[in-house]
Amino acid sequence: MSTITVTLPDGSELEVEEGATVEDVAYEIGPGLGRDTVAGKLDGDLVAKEEEAYDGAAVEIVTEDSEAYLDVLRHSAAHVFGQALQRLYPEAKLAIGPSTDDGFYYDVANVDLDEDDLADIEAECHDIIDADYDIERVEVPREEALEAYEDNPYKQEILQDEAAGEDPVTFYEQDDWRDLCQGPHVDSTGEIGGFTLLEVSGAYWRGDEENDMLTRVYGTAFPTEEELEQFLDMREEAKERDHRKLGRELDLFSIPEVTGPGLPLYHPNGKTVLQELEDYVNDLNRDAGYDQVETPHVFRTELWKQSGHYENYKDDMFLLDVNEEEYGLKPMNCPGHATIFDQDTWSYRELPVRYFENGKVYRKEQRGELSGLSRVWAFTIDDGHLFCRPDQIEAEVTQIMDMIFEVIENFDLDVEVALATRPEKSVGSDEIWEQAESQLRDVLEDGGYEYDVEEGDGAFYGPKIDFGFEDALGRVWDGPTVQLDFNMPERFDLSYVGSDNEEHRPVMIHRALYGSYERFFMVLIEHFDGKFPLWLAPEQVRVLPISDDNLPYAKRVAGELSSKGFRAEVEERDWTIGKKIQQTHEDRVPYMVVVGGDEEESMTISVRDRKEREASDVEREDFYSHLEDERDEKRTEPDFLAE
Amino acid sequence: MSTITVTLPDGSELEVEEGATVEDVAYEIGPGLGRDTVAGKLDGDLVAKEEEAYDGAAVEIVTEDSEAYLDVLRHSAAHVFGQALQRLYPEAKLAIGPSTDDGFYYDVANVDLDEDDLADIEAECHDIIDADYDIERVEVPREEALEAYEDNPYKQEILQDEAAGEDPVTFYEQDDWRDLCQGPHVDSTGEIGGFTLLEVSGAYWRGDEENDMLTRVYGTAFPTEEELEQFLDMREEAKERDHRKLGRELDLFSIPEVTGPGLPLYHPNGKTVLQELEDYVNDLNRDAGYDQVETPHVFRTELWKQSGHYENYKDDMFLLDVNEEEYGLKPMNCPGHATIFDQDTWSYRELPVRYFENGKVYRKEQRGELSGLSRVWAFTIDDGHLFCRPDQIEAEVTQIMDMIFEVIENFDLDVEVALATRPEKSVGSDEIWEQAESQLRDVLEDGGYEYDVEEGDGAFYGPKIDFGFEDALGRVWDGPTVQLDFNMPERFDLSYVGSDNEEHRPVMIHRALYGSYERFFMVLIEHFDGKFPLWLAPEQVRVLPISDDNLPYAKRVAGELSSKGFRAEVEERDWTIGKKIQQTHEDRVPYMVVVGGDEEESMTISVRDRKEREASDVEREDFYSHLEDERDEKRTEPDFLAE
Repeated sequence: MSTITVTLPDGSELEVEEGATVEDVAYEIGPGLGRDTVAGKLDGDLVAKEEEAYDGAAVEIVTEDSEAYLDVLRHSAAHVFGQALQRLYPEAKLAIGPSTDDGFYYDVANVDLDEDDLADIEAECHDIIDADYDIERVEVPREEALEAYEDNPYKQEILQDEAAGEDPVTFYEQDDWRDLCQGPHVDSTGEIGGFTLLEVSGAYWRGDEENDMLTRVYGTAFPTEEELEQFLDMREEAKERDHRKLGRELDLFSIPEVTGPGLPLYHPNGKTVLQELEDYVNDLNRDAGYDQVETPHVFRTELWKQSGHYENYKDDMFLLDVNEEEYGLKPMNCPGHATIFDQDTWSYRELPVRYFENGKVYRKEQRGELSGLSRVWAFTIDDGHLFCRPDQIEAEVTQIMDMIFEVIENFDLDVEVALATRPEKSVGSDEIWEQAESQLRDVLEDGGYEYDVEEGDGAFYGPKIDFGFEDALGRVWDGPTVQLDFNMPERFDLSYVGSDNEEHRPVMIHRALYGSYERFFMVLIEHFDGKFPLWLAPEQVRVLPISDDNLPYAKRVAGELSSKGFRAEVEERDWTIGKKIQQTHEDRVPYMVVVGGDEEESMTISVRDRKEREASDVEREDFYSHLEDERDEKRTEPDFLAE
Repeated sequence: MSTITVTLPDGSELEVEEGATVEDVAYEIGPGLGRDTVAGKLDGDLVAKEEEAYDGAAVEIVTEDSEAYLDVLRHSAAHVFGQALQRLYPEAKLAIGPSTDDGFYYDVANVDLDEDDLADIEAECHDIIDADYDIERVEVPREEALEAYEDNPYKQEILQDEAAGEDPVTFYEQDDWRDLCQGPHVDSTGEIGGFTLLEVSGAYWRGDEENDMLTRVYGTAFPTEEELEQFLDMREEAKERDHRKLGRELDLFSIPEVTGPGLPLYHPNGKTVLQELEDYVNDLNRDAGYDQVETPHVFRTELWKQSGHYENYKDDMFLLDVNEEEYGLKPMNCPGHATIFDQDTWSYRELPVRYFENGKVYRKEQRGELSGLSRVWAFTIDDGHLFCRPDQIEAEVTQIMDMIFEVIENFDLDVEVALATRPEKSVGSDEIWEQAESQLRDVLEDGGYEYDVEEGDGAFYGPKIDFGFEDALGRVWDGPTVQLDFNMPERFDLSYVGSDNEEHRPVMIHRALYGSYERFFMVLIEHFDGKFPLWLAPEQVRVLPISDDNLPYAKRVAGELSSKGFRAEVEERDWTIGKKIQQTHEDRVPYMVVVGGDEEESMTISVRDRKEREASDVEREDFYSHLEDERDEKRTEPDFLAE
């Protein structure tokens, strides 16, 4: 029998018999690992342990200790839900039920469910889990499968598309119930320690608005009950911090129906935060030698044809007709910046040329995908584009990494870094790719950064470094990016004159520090639970007079604060001081100053902060000068009253 | 015979016989005025002295001393050109030839002219002027006129449209030449003292791109040769200062064909100036209690239907289709701001609510009307909208006037102020219009402002105060505006709760301090001839090392300037110091610092400014601290070296 060679995660190679399954490979490595095998990965794709390895495959064994185990467990949890649903609603038709980052969902049809129905279904799920049914992979003749799903157009479609031509087809079976499925699954329903259903919503079949609207039931599962409890606590906290909820409560922004979906209006409070964020990166950029530019939001589609966006991105673009010529709202800022660069001639001595713009871009998302500030139609990128010589890449990327980490630390965020390398479909010579990837690696290594490598995940036009922001709840959000680009300079025929007096092609670097302002704002709202650092807070100090008699003194204090550049208001409503304090807490104002007869007499103030610490007999100047430091140093927490 | 009553400019009334002409009215006032009458105005429209007055008309007599005399003279100059052209090119067909603010033009067809042909035609014009032909008004039977213009479709169209049904029709005749014309004209061609043709361009008949392209010849005329010379000098200066020319030379902006017309790209130098302008008004606004907001550039047309823009403004809007719903790029920022106001409930105590936004708007102009930054498709307004109680209008408008005059003085501009009152077509009760107009008048009177009243020129939704910027060359440009609006609050059903606990309708005030950033930037470029005040200058100081040996010291000085927030560059090119100085002058940099061996030894600097003043042995700190003051006080001219 002939053999094949597979690669293991540590880079070593293993020779196995042709036809060996993932499980066989595991046994080949060691019998302990073989016994523990739950599933596997072939070239990064999660597969059942019964799947055959192939020559040259990168094989990874998934056990209960693997990260991917949770995906397998949750996929099985979706099956548990499917079985329970059909026990209670035999007429229900199942569509698809995958695992997700947070749990799983199942899209179902022909059944009318709302949140009230979930308790009964969940009870049934727990029965199935408690029964600890074996979960078995079974091969079913195609004819039998087609017949079984006679009345289910979704499974029919899957049989026609994903399982085209397969005979037999793979099902997974537990008890007397089975589901068309490639797996993998855990060995038995009892492996699911914590299980809950979460909510019901609508979803289009295949995510396409033209298709049937199905019912989507979300749930989650964990190996233990304890992990589930932790997850639910965190979820509750995330709900409390939901930026849509806080956006309303703190009057930050709105997305009213009449103005259009995915097109947020920023109210004064929200715009104040955004403007501070903008001023902060503008300063960072200027200090790093970036020049600010401004480009229109609308361009002739000639430009998008030149840049390649029209060809590759047209369906996501907002196009319009002006006097019978076609124009497009910009989906990216780079072609505008390349055009500005192209208006001039450049010497090698003048490079790098660094442009930045807080540039709004427009991308047509399906209405169903729009959500608060996290998925919008129009968002502003703190966008920078550099044009440099190949020998300058390393220095430039190093500077950008420093800027990104300055931002991350400034907001007390954590970060995940990933290097994404050359994909199969790409432009540019081997030599330039190798040089570029090795320069990015060198930057990451020399800087001592921890990073993952995402092989083949680079853009077609160059390798990149992606950053994920990890917030206070441990969630990870798409963040900034640094991308090398060998394609756009070609398309725009950009050049500089080298020391040899010949024309050369510059390298273009795309970079953002926040990424999208909208998403970053969302992350900050939830990360800080709306309790912005002093420098960002829409209202920095609220002055509360104990009675109307103290109003003039309160206004004097607020006036002093304003003249020092603070956003300070006086609470003038006819409320008890208790209610005033409570409201100020709810509004998450960092500091409140309370003034009554005593304070007025001694010309001092009482200070409280949003952590409910307080001090009286405070000299005004002491407070003001502390505030200035706290603001200018951009400290995250109010600390005038810290011990 | 019956009589009619007319009103004279001083407000007095005069009874004259029915059928009395403008000239008759002048004789009625006094025989001297009668003899001097050149033409007249009836309700503001310029008419021939032969025109009959009508009952209730406001009559104004135009003599050689009137402002309108220049219009009459230039209209006659257009006739002189028409006659000369047809002497030299008998086949030429004349279309229309009006006077303009700067002179006159004549649109002609069936003749191929370029700039080289103008000298011969101008010589012929001078012959006609020197011949001093009488210019006579003649009545011609309609039939004869139709026949005379048998081959001239433009005059035919005028006979059908403007002169519909008239028989006889009015011509003006000089020598053996006549032209279909309502007049008025001066008495003879010899009254034209200074005359010149200026340039040739193309223009669509009636300004409509669907019509024939005609040849437009521009010229100008004055009562004296001396006035013409002055005009030509000023025109030469304006050409030198043309913002399109300086925009290229100073690398401020570009409008390349590929990106689309009327959609400027701001290069780093231009964006630096714009950003300073923006920061300046942002501070002004914040100090005046305005809150910054941000609204999308695209809204569902539902919003534009609600605001009335869709109905009245649709043809000028950029519309687009998104997932089969109609959207529009915003032509104005007000509906977005009204929507934000509408998201909340307001107490009378919280008013006025003042929003501002540097908001980009989009208005479709014909491509032929687009020009540099003065007429564009997309421009940013420093837009403010206030929502206030009727009793707050006066205080708010007073504050706005103060802000506008602060801006005007800050840039050494002059200004023209006009109050525009209720037009025939308008919304809102008599009472509210009277109250609003009288409040605006009170603000203007109490503030001691000089202003014109433009009767009936207000917006349909309310009266307004318009401002024209007068630049260093005496030209006047559209500037800021303050508009009261009773309509939008109705359309958006805006309300506040009054002290009576009832709902009331707020008044909306629209205001801008610059107007459009694009136009204001254009005005500033030409007003300052590109020599921006220090605080605005893209590059504030250039450091010139006398030789490469002095480069490290030059960099040290530039570094010190940068660390104090100045935009300072080192000239590193391998040029003579003379050439470096010359280039810095051409780039209009306010200050240059020259450093050579002497300076380095004494650690001082030599300073030169763009007015070619210089000083050596300057202590660096003295220069820096002067610069900080000059910048922070926003002084218009560099004055470190002033005596």
